[in-house]
Amino acid sequence: MFKGALPGFRDFYPQELAERAHIMRIWREVARRYAFVEYDGPPLEPLDLYTKKSGDEIVGQLYNFVDKGGREVALRPEMTPTVARMVAARANALRKPVRWFSMPQLFRYERQQKGRLREHYQLNVDLFGTSDIAADAELVACAVDMMRAFGLESSDVVVRVSDRRILHAFLRSLGVAEEAIGGVYGVIDKLERTPAQVSGEKLAALGVPAQAIERIITIASVTFDEVQARIGASSAAEQVEEFARFLRYVPALLGGDARWLQLDLSIVRGLAYYTGIVFELFDRSGEFRAICGGGRYDNLLKSLGGADMPALGFGMGDVVLGELLRSRGLMKPESTAADVWLGAAESVPLEQVMAEAARRRGAGESVEYALRTQSMSKQRKAAQASGAREFVDLSNDGNDGRNG
Amino acid sequence: MFKGALPGFRDFYPQELAERAHIMRIWREVARRYAFVEYDGPPLEPLDLYTKKSGDEIVGQLYNFVDKGGREVALRPEMTPTVARMVAARANALRKPVRWFSMPQLFRYERQQKGRLREHYQLNVDLFGTSDIAADAELVACAVDMMRAFGLESSDVVVRVSDRRILHAFLRSLGVAEEAIGGVYGVIDKLERTPAQVSGEKLAALGVPAQAIERIITIASVTFDEVQARIGASSAAEQVEEFARFLRYVPALLGGDARWLQLDLSIVRGLAYYTGIVFELFDRSGEFRAICGGGRYDNLLKSLGGADMPALGFGMGDVVLGELLRSRGLMKPESTAADVWLGAAESVPLEQVMAEAARRRGAGESVEYALRTQSMSKQRKAAQASGAREFVDLSNDGNDGRNG
Repeated sequence: MFKGALPGFRDFYPQELAERAHIMRIWREVARRYAFVEYDGPPLEPLDLYTKKSGDEIVGQLYNFVDKGGREVALRPEMTPTVARMVAARANALRKPVRWFSMPQLFRYERQQKGRLREHYQLNVDLFGTSDIAADAELVACAVDMMRAFGLESSDVVVRVSDRRILHAFLRSLGVAEEAIGGVYGVIDKLERTPAQVSGEKLAALGVPAQAIERIITIASVTFDEVQARIGASSAAEQVEEFARFLRYVPALLGGDARWLQLDLSIVRGLAYYTGIVFELFDRSGEFRAICGGGRYDNLLKSLGGADMPALGFGMGDVVLGELLRSRGLMKPESTAADVWLGAAESVPLEQVMAEAARRRGAGESVEYALRTQSMSKQRKAAQASGAREFVDLSNDGNDGRNG
Repeated sequence: MFKGALPGFRDFYPQELAERAHIMRIWREVARRYAFVEYDGPPLEPLDLYTKKSGDEIVGQLYNFVDKGGREVALRPEMTPTVARMVAARANALRKPVRWFSMPQLFRYERQQKGRLREHYQLNVDLFGTSDIAADAELVACAVDMMRAFGLESSDVVVRVSDRRILHAFLRSLGVAEEAIGGVYGVIDKLERTPAQVSGEKLAALGVPAQAIERIITIASVTFDEVQARIGASSAAEQVEEFARFLRYVPALLGGDARWLQLDLSIVRGLAYYTGIVFELFDRSGEFRAICGGGRYDNLLKSLGGADMPALGFGMGDVVLGELLRSRGLMKPESTAADVWLGAAESVPLEQVMAEAARRRGAGESVEYALRTQSMSKQRKAAQASGAREFVDLSNDGNDGRNG
């Protein structure tokens, strides 16, 4: 007898496929409105594409192996190295800014936990070749517009946004030493999941001045006014001004809706490679993990040995988003049922039913019918079970009305 | 510097992605009209899913490895074992006939030749739980309707169709011994690529009577009249009658168009598991490999240890089809360019452009604009390079007309 799929891998029966297709349709539709164009790369890549960016530790989480040609290869755990490779290969030919999106299936060998998957689909939306802060705003607005297209509102979802450069200047202004910054980022990244006392001890151990510790532990509550007051006239003045523009641009791109955005300097996003604005989308109830995260990573392409090109992007997975939509009653995939079920009395030759099916299919309708001559009651039952929108009885002279 | 993709793997830049999307859109649209519903499975499966069906020889062509949990796994080289597994798991709950399609990416470690790929996308369309010959006709008509939807005509493509049971009876009627049938299938499968003399010698070695050898070597020319004359009154009479119905049903499903179908008893389709009608679609010029192939495989699910359920299906890959469409000037992907490029004089604040972008995007238009204030000539150049359908100058009072 068959075993099922591998642990952590999903079968997509028609119902699940329809839900996946619903998510992808909205992703694609909104990305298109923002003039992003779709690309894709191979699901299998040379292993060193990932170790180059993330170091050898990543290998512990990879589906990696040696192929029959002796190449070290891995199933892609993320899309950024692939897109960096592809952009670098055509850095000069591509029109700037490059506005690309993709919806790859990604693979990680996670330690197995209940419901923890080893594959997921992740929308990746990226811009390459622009340093303008308007690009950061476009990216955030695009993510928010996707939420709106799914039927979510600003009462459901919040965009928490920070800026690496502002956080840096803010921490420096609190008296954090330059060499402690990386360590403090690490503490801030874990604030939400760590008791305040433990975080305080860690900050003290990093040499953070006592009077700064409390402000760092509650850094999520820092307002933009406080940022301006503290570093608006410092050497980071330009970044603060740019951030202020960002805070105006996003609502402008959302038709004047300013309710989605929330400054939150505690958003660090573990990844070392972010250089500017970083953001994450969360459900306001705090029930789920982040829906989406991204930011600016201007140095990554160069550090990977590719083109020296500013870049920014976000990723949005199908799993957390799907859970959120289902919990809100917003998972509404298109019906997979046929438009029409054609029935006919046993006296009607099957070719006649087929000819009518051909006519309707030619006009774009989806049509099912019994593949053999059978009683009308059997046909009606089959039609009803199929969920087809309409039952047409060819024995009569035309349409028999709604099915069911 | 980056290396490229692995040998035999494709990067899909926007142009190539648009072509892939064009193919998939037509596949999906026509499958839907025939009331097939989409499913998918994991690209990584337990290795024994494939060895069980195809024996251990298949391993030489697989991307297989041991995962971090010690499981023998493989990238899927075909979809049939996955769909057989999925159908078997819900054999009782699924409405019959099951009408499913999928468009998986498949992987084979082929010995590398120029242009030979190691991955491709393959449409799989299958029916489970029906023995009716109308199902076979539906399947062939669906494949043909896809050709028509791509703009191909019956002067471009032919469906060569055979039936395992008829071929068997025909060969028996020529005096081929039962135990030689398998060997004769093998010779017939290779007829096109083998000199007639060599085939003749092989047939003789299999004990085929001398007077039958010539008819087998030219078996592709056997007409249905000859089939009827030779075995229409034999123990295979029922199969011949059923095949006659099939030959009427397919044109009925194509709106009366009988030009696509050609009886060709030389179509064997290597695979041992076919049990009834088998077919392949070819371009009539003979320039390309088969576009599509399939047939009935009533015993496969049972032999894999799954449900005992009649089944039939076809596969159609994106590579040969794509080559054919390009060679005929029929590869016509949708444009990826934006609908509108918004321009504005340097005096217009960026927020104003953004507000107009928001309005238009909200109405479903795809909109691009300069992410910084810049001269109108730069903006016009950028718009033109983007290929956007329309350039709208917000400095004026509205629409500036077509772009370019």
